[in-house]
Amino acid sequence: MDSAKYKLLSQILRPSDLRNLKLEQLNDVCEELRKYIIEVISQHPGHLGSSLGAVELAVAIHYVFDTPYDNVVWDVGHQAYAHKILTERRDKFTTIRQFGGISGFPKMSESEYDSFGTGHASTSVSAALGMALSAQFKGEFTRQTIAVVGDGAATGGMIYEALNNAGATKANMIIILNDNGIAIDKNTGAMNDYLMSLSLSKKYNNFRDKIWNGLVNRNERLHIEKNHFVIQQLKRGMKASILGKNNLFEDLGVRYFGTANGNDVLQVIDILQQIKEIKGPKILHCITVKGRGLAAAEQDQIKFHAPGIFNPETGETVKDSTQCPPKFQDVFGETIVRIAEENGDIVGISPAMLSGSSLDKMMEVMPDRCFDVGIAEEHAVTFAAGLAARKMRPYLAIYSTFLQRGYDQVIHDVALQKLPVVFCIDRAGLVGEDGPTHHGAFDLAYLRSIPNMIISAPMDEFQLQNLMFSAQYTTLPMAIRYPRGKGSNINWRLDKLSQIAIGRGRKLVEGKDVAIITIGKPGTFVSKALEILKERNTGIHPSHYDMIFLKPIDVDLLEDACTKHKYIITVEDGTIVGGLGSAVLEYVSDRGYDCKVKRLGIPDDFIGQGKPAELYHLCGFDAEGIANAVISASLFR
Amino acid sequence: MDSAKYKLLSQILRPSDLRNLKLEQLNDVCEELRKYIIEVISQHPGHLGSSLGAVELAVAIHYVFDTPYDNVVWDVGHQAYAHKILTERRDKFTTIRQFGGISGFPKMSESEYDSFGTGHASTSVSAALGMALSAQFKGEFTRQTIAVVGDGAATGGMIYEALNNAGATKANMIIILNDNGIAIDKNTGAMNDYLMSLSLSKKYNNFRDKIWNGLVNRNERLHIEKNHFVIQQLKRGMKASILGKNNLFEDLGVRYFGTANGNDVLQVIDILQQIKEIKGPKILHCITVKGRGLAAAEQDQIKFHAPGIFNPETGETVKDSTQCPPKFQDVFGETIVRIAEENGDIVGISPAMLSGSSLDKMMEVMPDRCFDVGIAEEHAVTFAAGLAARKMRPYLAIYSTFLQRGYDQVIHDVALQKLPVVFCIDRAGLVGEDGPTHHGAFDLAYLRSIPNMIISAPMDEFQLQNLMFSAQYTTLPMAIRYPRGKGSNINWRLDKLSQIAIGRGRKLVEGKDVAIITIGKPGTFVSKALEILKERNTGIHPSHYDMIFLKPIDVDLLEDACTKHKYIITVEDGTIVGGLGSAVLEYVSDRGYDCKVKRLGIPDDFIGQGKPAELYHLCGFDAEGIANAVISASLFR
Repeated sequence: MDSAKYKLLSQILRPSDLRNLKLEQLNDVCEELRKYIIEVISQHPGHLGSSLGAVELAVAIHYVFDTPYDNVVWDVGHQAYAHKILTERRDKFTTIRQFGGISGFPKMSESEYDSFGTGHASTSVSAALGMALSAQFKGEFTRQTIAVVGDGAATGGMIYEALNNAGATKANMIIILNDNGIAIDKNTGAMNDYLMSLSLSKKYNNFRDKIWNGLVNRNERLHIEKNHFVIQQLKRGMKASILGKNNLFEDLGVRYFGTANGNDVLQVIDILQQIKEIKGPKILHCITVKGRGLAAAEQDQIKFHAPGIFNPETGETVKDSTQCPPKFQDVFGETIVRIAEENGDIVGISPAMLSGSSLDKMMEVMPDRCFDVGIAEEHAVTFAAGLAARKMRPYLAIYSTFLQRGYDQVIHDVALQKLPVVFCIDRAGLVGEDGPTHHGAFDLAYLRSIPNMIISAPMDEFQLQNLMFSAQYTTLPMAIRYPRGKGSNINWRLDKLSQIAIGRGRKLVEGKDVAIITIGKPGTFVSKALEILKERNTGIHPSHYDMIFLKPIDVDLLEDACTKHKYIITVEDGTIVGGLGSAVLEYVSDRGYDCKVKRLGIPDDFIGQGKPAELYHLCGFDAEGIANAVISASLFR
Repeated sequence: MDSAKYKLLSQILRPSDLRNLKLEQLNDVCEELRKYIIEVISQHPGHLGSSLGAVELAVAIHYVFDTPYDNVVWDVGHQAYAHKILTERRDKFTTIRQFGGISGFPKMSESEYDSFGTGHASTSVSAALGMALSAQFKGEFTRQTIAVVGDGAATGGMIYEALNNAGATKANMIIILNDNGIAIDKNTGAMNDYLMSLSLSKKYNNFRDKIWNGLVNRNERLHIEKNHFVIQQLKRGMKASILGKNNLFEDLGVRYFGTANGNDVLQVIDILQQIKEIKGPKILHCITVKGRGLAAAEQDQIKFHAPGIFNPETGETVKDSTQCPPKFQDVFGETIVRIAEENGDIVGISPAMLSGSSLDKMMEVMPDRCFDVGIAEEHAVTFAAGLAARKMRPYLAIYSTFLQRGYDQVIHDVALQKLPVVFCIDRAGLVGEDGPTHHGAFDLAYLRSIPNMIISAPMDEFQLQNLMFSAQYTTLPMAIRYPRGKGSNINWRLDKLSQIAIGRGRKLVEGKDVAIITIGKPGTFVSKALEILKERNTGIHPSHYDMIFLKPIDVDLLEDACTKHKYIITVEDGTIVGGLGSAVLEYVSDRGYDCKVKRLGIPDDFIGQGKPAELYHLCGFDAEGIANAVISASLFR
């Protein structure tokens, strides 16, 4: 690291180095951290805004606490870049989110400073409570546990469950509420208004805190006329104001301090040093500015949540001027508007991923029929079920990895009730740089076990449009799962949408000996695989079936495959434990066919980060992997 | 129905009949309902205490609202017996929870009065919000939506997510908080204390409500000395007290009314008639007495949650004096105490099912190491992960159907982090009378897809003890799933616990031609199946393998089965889509064996209620089903 450019940061390898600095040097450390994050992330895309906002929190925490002995849990974790840089990963920071590089999220196997792995929202208070109580059990009474949680994550039900539990314990833990007033999208819901009202009452809180600190005698100044009943009310109000029982967190038994300026490193250090001495669960409410330090990022906080490559000076993002296929999410976003214009029963729902799922397109033109319910996947699913129970047709746009949060609700509130909720499952399969916390590896398998579910996956943009169109006519719940990133067709818009028969796939290539059976995007790898077979002069001409539906599966198509081929290769961008491959095996076995089946897909392991193409190759189901499987199969003819 | 005994109830087939009665007759209706519930449930076991407490709520709701046009969602639903009796199911009520009878829970396919199917906790506000907004979309502006939710369910994160969302909408909905101060077990957590504090401040609330109703001018009585700063604080406190902003629910944007005596039918009717005219989301906090009307049930509320057969006069329950095998849950309860006494790192966790899972045995002798976290499965799993991250060894006792709530947390916070949490999964398989909402049909399948998981299922009490003993030594998360109900051995206590090698099954019967491969309890059906084969003089002698572990699966054992038999029959008390049968198929296919595999288990459908034996038979994997499968297999030799 250039010590001329980074005078202080170049001397900091780990928190103990930071703690050797004087308080008055810390503002400069923060500025250097910010500069370094912008420098690196402008060239190596990652999450930007949240980490810029949380620089001072990271510095303050590592300055005040004895990390890694003291444990810090970063909720979601994409705001923890400064933490990573300060904890022995300064120079590796340029490899962030890349294949073989450091993770974009805290990861226990990467560093002892990452006390708990995160990625999904709202887990930190639960984990920290467990850790704090462990410290008590182990007799480590000075050991501190800190959870840093964003205001977006505070809409998740887990946080409430954890606070409810924490408030009933004496666990020594500090919850730092990093409130930048914005989740990935503009934060919505009553909680947001509530936090706003708390932050606007800063003076009141300061007063209250002073009282708590014993600086003000709470009774001496009060002389109230005698109206007994009214005075009782006033006393209650007083108690509420002065003892702090006027606060959702304290209602749940967690002591509240706030609000602090979370971008004032010295203020945060001062407060943390005081409250770490107070026993029991506590919450420190810090106001921060998302994107702080980069003017463009402060102004457009949604765009700069994860901006891609940009100019570190101006914030200007690089626009790709060449025409290219659309992102699947944009096909979803345009199509839902298109079909909702024709069908007044259709409503859109997103759990805090409006722009990520491109449902913002619908929000723009029909805001009354579009709901951002917050980071609240459980509620999102059952809310959709309630709408469907009364004859609306909800389309729930949700990432595959986050639908895991609503698994019980899919089973219990949707499938068992036979309610035609449409699940538009984005980021299915391997998502790339976000890595194992975010891969949508399990949805095909975990949905397949659920009775009454229709499960589909479009191979391309055309199918996605038609599946979305078809879903409004079903009487059962239907999942349409599609990957992160771009499709394969520049001219993708269909003039006319048409219905795809539920449970019907298609045969794309008529060949012999070997049948390749795919679902979803990997179907597009097959033509390349066939080219490879041709280039290598193998003389093998496999058939190719695109199932479109995992459930109900097209038994006519499978019968065709089984009767005409000795060898079947299944390809899916999901776990091979329980997915398409297993479904085909079950069919082959139930019908008593003798075909041999080879399953390609995500192996039974958590797959790391990298470009999707790198990961497809790693898992062995890219074009080359498919070609190799065909050749191996043919050896056994 | 005997019209002498039930003068009023015998005239009520549906709510319209109820609405023809005079207000002064309603107390008698409640008494008759209570009598009828006690009469029936004393002989046909079901949930008792909750329904007795909610009689007046059911009568008031159907008296005030135009059901079924107005929609009522009963959270959890086991408190809805009076509702069922009042809505065309009076005479069928004697069939409740029985095979072919009416469900113990609201069920949409059973009655149009059951607006939404329930069973799991905390879903009602989400569903009701969807329904209320649907009414707006459909222009049904007078249509009312009511959610009735218990205080236990209010600890679930979904409720918080839903309130947060509801508070930001203008949905016309009434949430009736049925607060009996006790969930299935004694309610725990800060929320409980909080509700208690609200209910203790009834006078204050009445005052506040009057103000809301415009009966009192909020300023006229107040004359306060001038101390500007203090007055500001007081005003804030005043506002909190008087405008009701001193309340968790109102912090979330939901208007709060309370507390009412929920067992005073006339009071509840009066309030409902008033607040149904108020627009927007509202909550009515009612205090009720669980078990009301049966002295024994009021006194021992935990026992009378679901008491079994009892004397309707005295409440005396029938004790089975014959010695019989223990319940699996009791084997769990005794064993965790036994191993925790030796290993100080072991802690027990239950999400609100202390007595149901028999973890109360541990709570009794080591309360400091035992946590009831409330109805909060998401938190429970990640809380366990936090404990494991800091070297404690948490045993999480959780019902299979409720672990679905923590699915993402199992993947993301436990398995991905490789944390050795022990999942003691009770009520796995077909649970019997609770029916489809409660069957533990999916766990084998949904856990099998998760990397790093160890999944086991004991065939009997001995294995359960040893699996629990073994689980404290693993470095990976481990699931031990066992069924509801009794085991098969009267002398079940092992003198010495011993380790079972992870991933090792056992061969119980050496036979030929056909291999029966089981996991868990269905293994005990096999000896009977072999007897049937003998009785029928089939001459078939199948082998029997008890896998014990689904994952890692014992490949040596499977190799033995595949090489020595032409035909394999797998038996599991879980869905055949993705479970043990699929695992065996995958193995057979991957190794290229030619065995034919027949999978027995729960078919791809939601299975109804009934006695477990009835359901095993229905699904075709009881002893007879296994014997028949063996015979069919042998026909193809």
